[in-house]
Amino acid sequence: MLLKNSAQTLTTQLAARFGQRIRDRLLAPGARLPSVRLCAQQQKVSPSTVVGAYDMLLAQGLVEARKNRGFYVREGQNSALTPMDTAQAAIKSAANAKGGMAELPPPVAPVNATALIRSMFHGVSDKPQPGAGVLPTEWLQNTFLASALRQHCSVQAINSMSLQYGEPAGDLGLRRALSNRLAHIALHVAPEHIITTLGATHALDLVSRTLLRTGDYVMVEEPGWAVEFARLNALGMRILPVPRRADGPDLEVMARYCAAYAPKLFVSVSVLHNPTGFSLSPGSAYRVLQLANQHNFHVLEDDTYSHFAPEHATRLCALDGLQRTIYVSGFSKILAPNWRVGYMAAPKALAEALLDTKLLTTLTTPALLEKAVAWCIDQGQLRRHAERVRTRMDAARARSVKLAVAHGCTLAAEPAGMFGWVDTGVDTDVLAQRMLDMGYLLAPGALFHATRQASSLMRINFATTQEAQFWASFAKLRDEQR
Amino acid sequence: MLLKNSAQTLTTQLAARFGQRIRDRLLAPGARLPSVRLCAQQQKVSPSTVVGAYDMLLAQGLVEARKNRGFYVREGQNSALTPMDTAQAAIKSAANAKGGMAELPPPVAPVNATALIRSMFHGVSDKPQPGAGVLPTEWLQNTFLASALRQHCSVQAINSMSLQYGEPAGDLGLRRALSNRLAHIALHVAPEHIITTLGATHALDLVSRTLLRTGDYVMVEEPGWAVEFARLNALGMRILPVPRRADGPDLEVMARYCAAYAPKLFVSVSVLHNPTGFSLSPGSAYRVLQLANQHNFHVLEDDTYSHFAPEHATRLCALDGLQRTIYVSGFSKILAPNWRVGYMAAPKALAEALLDTKLLTTLTTPALLEKAVAWCIDQGQLRRHAERVRTRMDAARARSVKLAVAHGCTLAAEPAGMFGWVDTGVDTDVLAQRMLDMGYLLAPGALFHATRQASSLMRINFATTQEAQFWASFAKLRDEQR
Repeated sequence: MLLKNSAQTLTTQLAARFGQRIRDRLLAPGARLPSVRLCAQQQKVSPSTVVGAYDMLLAQGLVEARKNRGFYVREGQNSALTPMDTAQAAIKSAANAKGGMAELPPPVAPVNATALIRSMFHGVSDKPQPGAGVLPTEWLQNTFLASALRQHCSVQAINSMSLQYGEPAGDLGLRRALSNRLAHIALHVAPEHIITTLGATHALDLVSRTLLRTGDYVMVEEPGWAVEFARLNALGMRILPVPRRADGPDLEVMARYCAAYAPKLFVSVSVLHNPTGFSLSPGSAYRVLQLANQHNFHVLEDDTYSHFAPEHATRLCALDGLQRTIYVSGFSKILAPNWRVGYMAAPKALAEALLDTKLLTTLTTPALLEKAVAWCIDQGQLRRHAERVRTRMDAARARSVKLAVAHGCTLAAEPAGMFGWVDTGVDTDVLAQRMLDMGYLLAPGALFHATRQASSLMRINFATTQEAQFWASFAKLRDEQR
Repeated sequence: MLLKNSAQTLTTQLAARFGQRIRDRLLAPGARLPSVRLCAQQQKVSPSTVVGAYDMLLAQGLVEARKNRGFYVREGQNSALTPMDTAQAAIKSAANAKGGMAELPPPVAPVNATALIRSMFHGVSDKPQPGAGVLPTEWLQNTFLASALRQHCSVQAINSMSLQYGEPAGDLGLRRALSNRLAHIALHVAPEHIITTLGATHALDLVSRTLLRTGDYVMVEEPGWAVEFARLNALGMRILPVPRRADGPDLEVMARYCAAYAPKLFVSVSVLHNPTGFSLSPGSAYRVLQLANQHNFHVLEDDTYSHFAPEHATRLCALDGLQRTIYVSGFSKILAPNWRVGYMAAPKALAEALLDTKLLTTLTTPALLEKAVAWCIDQGQLRRHAERVRTRMDAARARSVKLAVAHGCTLAAEPAGMFGWVDTGVDTDVLAQRMLDMGYLLAPGALFHATRQASSLMRINFATTQEAQFWASFAKLRDEQR
């Protein structure tokens, strides 16, 4: 809110607000600022205040005026270097290469992948953030985390653990605990074929770097997680988006891609897919693996949300027994995001190569935090905590869905896991920009598409969308936009 | 040693020894095993024992017999995927592309980069390892490390630090401490232009990924660190080796490379260069920066060994004020290698792009360990500890050099820092293989050359080469080889 009785003028406050948003890339380079008339109306200030604020931004070099077309965020001097910024262009060119894909719309989209991911770190306000990708801290608070760490902080423990680089594959205690744990989801893998990583993100990166070479084609699910698109793009890969259905990826599209491009990899969040919450059916899983065998590609199964899923959910890796599949997961969604403990389980033939890539990129990973996670697993603390979280999530989901529907939304997918995929009926890129004024960061649907296009969908975190206050603000701005 | 009174036959023991070495890649794929006669002589067993052992290796699929040429380590089924294994070939092709470089010799070199790097994690015996890249654990033992951790293990600390992803750039307390610390080496950089990483290795990787595209030319110092060559190669870069002299890189070679290939980056361990211990002169530093300006490339200054160097040593980043330079360092060589705390300081214009790459590859890094390092800096513990280590290193260096000279070696570079660059007078690849039988892993000179070639040099760690026992074994096998 702009404050009339502030030490700063309304003009300065408005300029500061846009300036911060541009620096945070919540307003992307090339994005158009609202017209003076619209902005005045939205912010409830006079047009001259807006003109003054835009002039200040112009003087600061943050925006540029285009004749008769308004004000645009200036392209940064490094934009060519920034992987996030160039992802869209590369995806577009890959999409064009396969023909028949629509052109990208002009850059109206204000909230980009960088902005969303950064907002996960320092939210835009103190309010619960509907677009957040992790659980609120109060859901994760537990005294056992401190106990887990203290086990490994004695002088003796540090002398034996911290003063050498440590095991390249990661702490053996954790790998043993993981091996036991994976057996519960019918994935039988020896500790020596498990490699720990700095969160699941690091594992996804290591697999891509080990299996792929620049220019290789990779199939990803669409909708899907923008950071995955950006990472593959930064590595110089060509992205083939496969529509994700309720029971799995669109197999006909996959088959056509296989015939035309011989992709090397398919990346799938098979269980509790982000953002839809869909889980793979056994039949789809079998056919994906048949395709993989037939066309000789690997499957990277990202099981980040496994803690919210039943053990009997169908996993590609369990079916295939890690022949063509690589399993990736971690503990950021359930234990302590900043501990950055993740891992991958790989076919025997690949484990050595993955380990080499890990050595080249980080040498090892911190054993202290891996031992702490192992302790949480071995003591049963993780299991009990995850049960509590699932129960709480079930209640949150029910309440959040009810509120969404009561405020005129429809669910685009059967609600499951921690995310809802919600149709708002209006362009969520535009809505997201307006909601920032109220202190809420949305995750607009366009963000989950490899070929960015206007979308009326948004992803909500069930844990952070239980307050009527958010939904009231949402409905008000959505109705103004209609 | 093979044991006559062991439960296993000498044949089984010998096969097991070679088998382990092949799996650890201390014997590289394609390497030739010693002839039966030579092996029998070296191991003090009968030729029939050697024949039996080689037959067992053959049956295990670890070696292959080539008609009239002996036994060779089989190429692994993943060798094409392993970045370390393919580095040499790619470096060779880059070298050939610039013309006039000698062909690579056949693969006689048994100790490769993977093997050396892995040996840093689980040594080949309990003896002090002359080829080690880190200090022995007893040099690093300190009660203050446990104190540093315990400051940040309370329930309250964990609730405020571990349950969100954390600051993308890294813990602010550590970045402030680093900003103060860097001022002592005349590098003035604000905390917001410092980004923490998972050790210096991660920083080197992030810089390469942000600045370079596949096929770009990169200048590296030769001799230099094999892992850096392998990393750049795995990223698809073309390596241009610049001879490293006592006062800095060979500027004439650099100028020729600049004119012919427009390289994008020069990677330099300017101070206490690995493996030579050379430090850059002010004049050379100035001319490197002139070249960088003239030919528009960045300079990546790897100051990993800064803890052993005087503050007044010339740093490229301090001269240039982070215009075209990026500074990388870490704490693995002085505090706790497994904590994996490193960092980079970058030009303002690059910091955002580097941060995006960090987000794509690991999201964040663990704040707990960063806060612990910050505590060690802020409490003066690191400074006092580093002083003690330097004093101890001075004594170790003097003793180690004396022993090396007494055993017929010459120093190829003025001894400084933690490594000695020692001329043995014989092929150190061959010698390294023999020394493994005695439980010592050497770092042969060939490992430090981008274009692998026979070398009589080796790198020794002064901290681990103070025992007369090692030098006696060394001299004995060296003399046998002459």
